[in-house]
Amino acid sequence: MHDVAAAAGVSQATVSLVLNDAGGARFSEETRQRVHQAATMLGYRTNAHAKVLRDGVAGMIGFVGDSVATAPFAGKIIEGAQARAWEAGLLLLTVNTAGDQELEAASLEAMLSYKVAGVVYASMFHRIVDVPPVLGEVPAVVLNSQDRAGRFPSIAPSEELGGYTATRTLIDAGHHRIAFINIGRVEDALPAVVGRLAGYRRALEEAGLPALPTHYKTGDGHEDGGYRNTLELMAGPTPPTAIFCGNDRTAWGAYQALATLGLRIPGDVSVVGFDNQESLAPHLRPGLTTLELPLLEMGRRAVELILDGAEATGRTELLECPLIERDSVGPPAHLPNQRTGTA
Amino acid sequence: MHDVAAAAGVSQATVSLVLNDAGGARFSEETRQRVHQAATMLGYRTNAHAKVLRDGVAGMIGFVGDSVATAPFAGKIIEGAQARAWEAGLLLLTVNTAGDQELEAASLEAMLSYKVAGVVYASMFHRIVDVPPVLGEVPAVVLNSQDRAGRFPSIAPSEELGGYTATRTLIDAGHHRIAFINIGRVEDALPAVVGRLAGYRRALEEAGLPALPTHYKTGDGHEDGGYRNTLELMAGPTPPTAIFCGNDRTAWGAYQALATLGLRIPGDVSVVGFDNQESLAPHLRPGLTTLELPLLEMGRRAVELILDGAEATGRTELLECPLIERDSVGPPAHLPNQRTGTA
Repeated sequence: MHDVAAAAGVSQATVSLVLNDAGGARFSEETRQRVHQAATMLGYRTNAHAKVLRDGVAGMIGFVGDSVATAPFAGKIIEGAQARAWEAGLLLLTVNTAGDQELEAASLEAMLSYKVAGVVYASMFHRIVDVPPVLGEVPAVVLNSQDRAGRFPSIAPSEELGGYTATRTLIDAGHHRIAFINIGRVEDALPAVVGRLAGYRRALEEAGLPALPTHYKTGDGHEDGGYRNTLELMAGPTPPTAIFCGNDRTAWGAYQALATLGLRIPGDVSVVGFDNQESLAPHLRPGLTTLELPLLEMGRRAVELILDGAEATGRTELLECPLIERDSVGPPAHLPNQRTGTA
Repeated sequence: MHDVAAAAGVSQATVSLVLNDAGGARFSEETRQRVHQAATMLGYRTNAHAKVLRDGVAGMIGFVGDSVATAPFAGKIIEGAQARAWEAGLLLLTVNTAGDQELEAASLEAMLSYKVAGVVYASMFHRIVDVPPVLGEVPAVVLNSQDRAGRFPSIAPSEELGGYTATRTLIDAGHHRIAFINIGRVEDALPAVVGRLAGYRRALEEAGLPALPTHYKTGDGHEDGGYRNTLELMAGPTPPTAIFCGNDRTAWGAYQALATLGLRIPGDVSVVGFDNQESLAPHLRPGLTTLELPLLEMGRRAVELILDGAEATGRTELLECPLIERDSVGPPAHLPNQRTGTA
């Protein structure tokens, strides 16, 4: 642990807290990553590995997910869950059900019969789920979603705070005309859709800015929804000087629409995304300022709760989505070309 | 089976052959998809599911992969493997090792002790791997990679044929100056890098076209490599009229570079990619013509081999990468603006 602390440039106490996922929000994501990287680099292992090698077969934690094929996010959640499980000497056994109820039932039954230490029940997009009652037999955590019946603890991103931060970032850069392209219909009640919108409205209200109906668009979470809605926004009576896009794919569409119109980012229009999708956000030109879904941390935290015995309460733990600043936010075009705020 | 055949518009024999992955290349990917969709839609199940529900705990096939976080492809391979396993009433238990040797060893030991019917040993990019000898204890298949020692059967995409088809598509459209941006260094001997290049050269040679050194670039498989190399190609003495990009991310970079130069696709330059990455290729403007990695089929085929008892031979089965035609290929700019070939 001494070596890890030295390599990461932090105290031994910090190493211990970070590796045990304790300390809450006291440490930045950057510090946490530095500690984990140093631990990995130095081959730092808990005593659990010695025990596994001594006793033979390792224990298991089950991970049941509803989708992998269409989920660019699944990998990081699983990576985080697995890293934490393996630190405790446990294997993470993953079954992807693709929403097949029979497969899900058979998988859970198999996991329970193999005496898993607990089960992570994960949704690949944030939503409200009906959790199979059989999960009451072991410590279970609902991940990236919330238990409709309120029995199981759950881990999810703080969508509202993320939407607030995205909008606040644009306000701080001097923008007054900020549009929002949502990623679905409010009626469908997905937490990401409802929460990010609520955060957008709170930030506007707090700054005394009106939430113009003409500045609100319902996209579909895909590139095309960003493209079409951006064209509509820019053709409107009071075109926005900044667009908060409900996810990075929507922002990608906004980029293409603005390019079609001959408008520069951020010179003419600023853009903020959501997700920090690693195959997309850093590769857009200019790089996209966006909110990061804390996927690794969500996976780690779910396993941590199981290791702690995951009491069967419906408490939802919301993890913060940090702002990742790149180059898509600047002052509004009608102001002198200098930064006017914290963005 | 009768209903599935009717819904898919094929014979019952075709349904049987497709659902059992028999019939080799007799059926197009489109036919296979139609049959699988009809089967899924109609809830068609083999008798295996009834047996699982009657006997209790399902059998398992293990799937050990070396990476998920950075692999946009992992999901589809796992989806295919899982669908085939579940058709036989087996669960697919997935462990992602992230290259951790201890975790891999513990996972394999656990899987063997739980009496899995076999193990799929998968790499998330096509390469030569050292397969743990312990896999000799069960039917095992090496997926998306090849066993260095030549003991285990393996499934991989036909990179050479893909590279040939990509280049041939551009030749057929009338191009004579076709550049290739590879996705890595030939010295590193990755099958995708070496194979796609070999196919490119074979197509040129067959057409009597020279493989100009100035038309060959070593990219990095990322957007940036496509961007930089396209700028260099277009600034060269004989700029190409068409670019074969070694993967879709590289093609995305080429799109951005060509846009920067004010050049249109395919009006000024045609582009072909590789992978058919679903979050990227259809969303580029214009849609990218590319070769599809047969991921679902690879996953299915690996499980099929295990169900057949996967004899321990080092035979590599290469699956064809079908051409997906979109709108990024046209005749060369100096020809009259009409299609001159099959592309």
